[in-house]
Amino acid sequence: MKKNIFYAQSGGVTPVINATAAGLIDAYNSNKNLFGKLYIGKNGIAGALNEELIDVNKEDPKELKKLIHTPGGAFGSCRIKLKDPVKNKKEFLRILNVFKNHNIGYFFYNGGGDSQDTTLKISNFCKDHGYNIICIGLPKTIDNDLPVTHNCPGFGSVAKYIAISTYEASLDVASMSNTSTKVFLLEVMGRHAGWLAASAGIIKTSQDSAPHLILLPEVSFNQERFLAKVKTTVKKYGYCVIVASEGIKNNKGEFVAASKSKDSFGHAHLGGVAPKLANMITEKLKIKVHWSVADYLQRAARHIASSVDVKQAYSIGKSAISHAKQGKNGVMLSIKSNSTKKFKWGISDVRLSNVANKEKKLPKSYISHDGFGITKSCKTYIENLVQGEDYPPYKNGIPDYAKLKHPLVKKRLKDF
Amino acid sequence: MKKNIFYAQSGGVTPVINATAAGLIDAYNSNKNLFGKLYIGKNGIAGALNEELIDVNKEDPKELKKLIHTPGGAFGSCRIKLKDPVKNKKEFLRILNVFKNHNIGYFFYNGGGDSQDTTLKISNFCKDHGYNIICIGLPKTIDNDLPVTHNCPGFGSVAKYIAISTYEASLDVASMSNTSTKVFLLEVMGRHAGWLAASAGIIKTSQDSAPHLILLPEVSFNQERFLAKVKTTVKKYGYCVIVASEGIKNNKGEFVAASKSKDSFGHAHLGGVAPKLANMITEKLKIKVHWSVADYLQRAARHIASSVDVKQAYSIGKSAISHAKQGKNGVMLSIKSNSTKKFKWGISDVRLSNVANKEKKLPKSYISHDGFGITKSCKTYIENLVQGEDYPPYKNGIPDYAKLKHPLVKKRLKDF
Repeated sequence: MKKNIFYAQSGGVTPVINATAAGLIDAYNSNKNLFGKLYIGKNGIAGALNEELIDVNKEDPKELKKLIHTPGGAFGSCRIKLKDPVKNKKEFLRILNVFKNHNIGYFFYNGGGDSQDTTLKISNFCKDHGYNIICIGLPKTIDNDLPVTHNCPGFGSVAKYIAISTYEASLDVASMSNTSTKVFLLEVMGRHAGWLAASAGIIKTSQDSAPHLILLPEVSFNQERFLAKVKTTVKKYGYCVIVASEGIKNNKGEFVAASKSKDSFGHAHLGGVAPKLANMITEKLKIKVHWSVADYLQRAARHIASSVDVKQAYSIGKSAISHAKQGKNGVMLSIKSNSTKKFKWGISDVRLSNVANKEKKLPKSYISHDGFGITKSCKTYIENLVQGEDYPPYKNGIPDYAKLKHPLVKKRLKDF
Repeated sequence: MKKNIFYAQSGGVTPVINATAAGLIDAYNSNKNLFGKLYIGKNGIAGALNEELIDVNKEDPKELKKLIHTPGGAFGSCRIKLKDPVKNKKEFLRILNVFKNHNIGYFFYNGGGDSQDTTLKISNFCKDHGYNIICIGLPKTIDNDLPVTHNCPGFGSVAKYIAISTYEASLDVASMSNTSTKVFLLEVMGRHAGWLAASAGIIKTSQDSAPHLILLPEVSFNQERFLAKVKTTVKKYGYCVIVASEGIKNNKGEFVAASKSKDSFGHAHLGGVAPKLANMITEKLKIKVHWSVADYLQRAARHIASSVDVKQAYSIGKSAISHAKQGKNGVMLSIKSNSTKKFKWGISDVRLSNVANKEKKLPKSYISHDGFGITKSCKTYIENLVQGEDYPPYKNGIPDYAKLKHPLVKKRLKDF
């Protein structure tokens, strides 16, 4: 009896994680003779724990066709840290039990660093318990912080959105700066790695052009140096554009955004680095600041996805099937690239044990000497990933995104 | 001797104010036999006060061609409130003097309510001083708060951006809500009128779909009712999407965003309504919230402009020339529309005295009974204005926006 597939989306979603699902579904449909059913976890690995398996064959094929251009996690994602299977194997035994009862022979887990770790643990646990299954991690993260792979699907589109948004807002503040707002500040995601903030740097064409400051988690934040640079920039060019990672830290390693109400900045905790920096500038330099927090807007902005990114995400999903056919187990699919000058990429794979729980930060060679910008090599690396505009189709002025129904497979087990 | 034209951009810029400049330049080029030179104020009316007149003929024509798809105010805008010409006519005398010395016979002022007031005052002042000039106001505001005109160029594109962004972020939070974030909150512009927040309502297709709450400045904010609605929504649908105008006020008429550190919300002033509402939800309901402040991103988002909006903005610029040819003075150009069912629009004009210092808020018939949403007629009105996607051209993954040099006409007067 042919084995079924279980695919699940995990962690913070991206504009193109559903493109990976689309690639997987297309490749599965072309290889139906080799596989049983394709099940997708409702809300990620929670779908396995709760025995909530979406039967993809029962979704409307017209809606499934839209997955390639739909943001969010169309089948539901999750933030669940499974308990260590050595100390408490209840959850892993449950997953194994669900896999056994639904004849799962292939597990594809689509996520970031934590999810690759989970994939590895499930692979090992199944092997230890004599259950034959192929476990493959599919990379996905806007943060671009997975090691070994050249880049992560998800990053290119968000990088493109941030670069465009910064460019557009810089034209706005430049036109207002003569008599009104002189500083614009954009907060972007990136708790530990500064790839997203760095991506704004690709629009900089000269000393005077925006962004004038990029604040990275890799560079310790110093209030005096920061304010001095803002002041000089406004004096020189009339305005100043700043892009800040949410995860910037002071020299004690404390998050600037998380500092308490009576800290050195004198502000209450509101959980955003942008308002904190904006108040700092207004109070110390007496300059009018506008600030923006991109938050989910950046992560969901499928309306301006990068073509390269969509293609990579789709290929990852497609390659899950070809790698499964080859019997590859315990690997994460990866993007390989031989050169960056004329960018060419392909799909490869790496051992999960080389990926799990490692974080790829911006290398020093990508950060400018003063710590407020990026180098040429960083610019080239990011530019390669934002090429092309992959627009979704529109209906009545609004993107026509997939609407799924999540039809579930009949349960065979008691509730967990 | 043929009279010259003086055009200026004013107030907060829009994604399409340069499309109006483009329409004006194209129509001017087709009517060069009737007019002298086309000058544009550097930084709006400040260009007249400082005698900084940009000579459009000396800009690179290739770059001028890009104006139709470039956001921001390409010639610089301004926030200047001119002193009342009755109490202090120094500024008006200066403007008159600059106009006389540069043979200005046509003044086109591209702005919102305040700017229409300025246009009217300049028109009256010139008449009172025996100077012959045609003054025409060109409407522009993302807030859509100008009276008489069916709508304002600028609004449609920002409405489209907000609707799309809300839709995309709602798919994101829906996929995370099972185990993580359950509320997403987007702060949009709109100090007094709720048109922009209302525009998120066009993506709502059923009771359960986003946005679940729209907070309008027209509806007094009540913390208890707000929290109760958020709580019920999360309970019923698993997640909740909120779009809030920056200008919402409590029943005492105080801005929620501006409330002091020891007010009823217990938070320090940070100048954003989103973090304030987010903290309220986290503290009172113990639910994880993500929040975004669109700020300039919404106002500059030319990458996803509405085709209708671009066409209207361009037509306004073009019609400035045809109206000037007809000798129309003391008017603002307006959008007229005979029906909203099958949307058709054209350019008309209204007396400036009927426009200046009046504000068009959302009518009661556009706000739902509970005050947290919009009605069908409001939806139809906004949908008409977001039709079509007018994409800018791209170069190397980034929009190819105009880069102007602002070549100035030689000064003839002493500094002001």
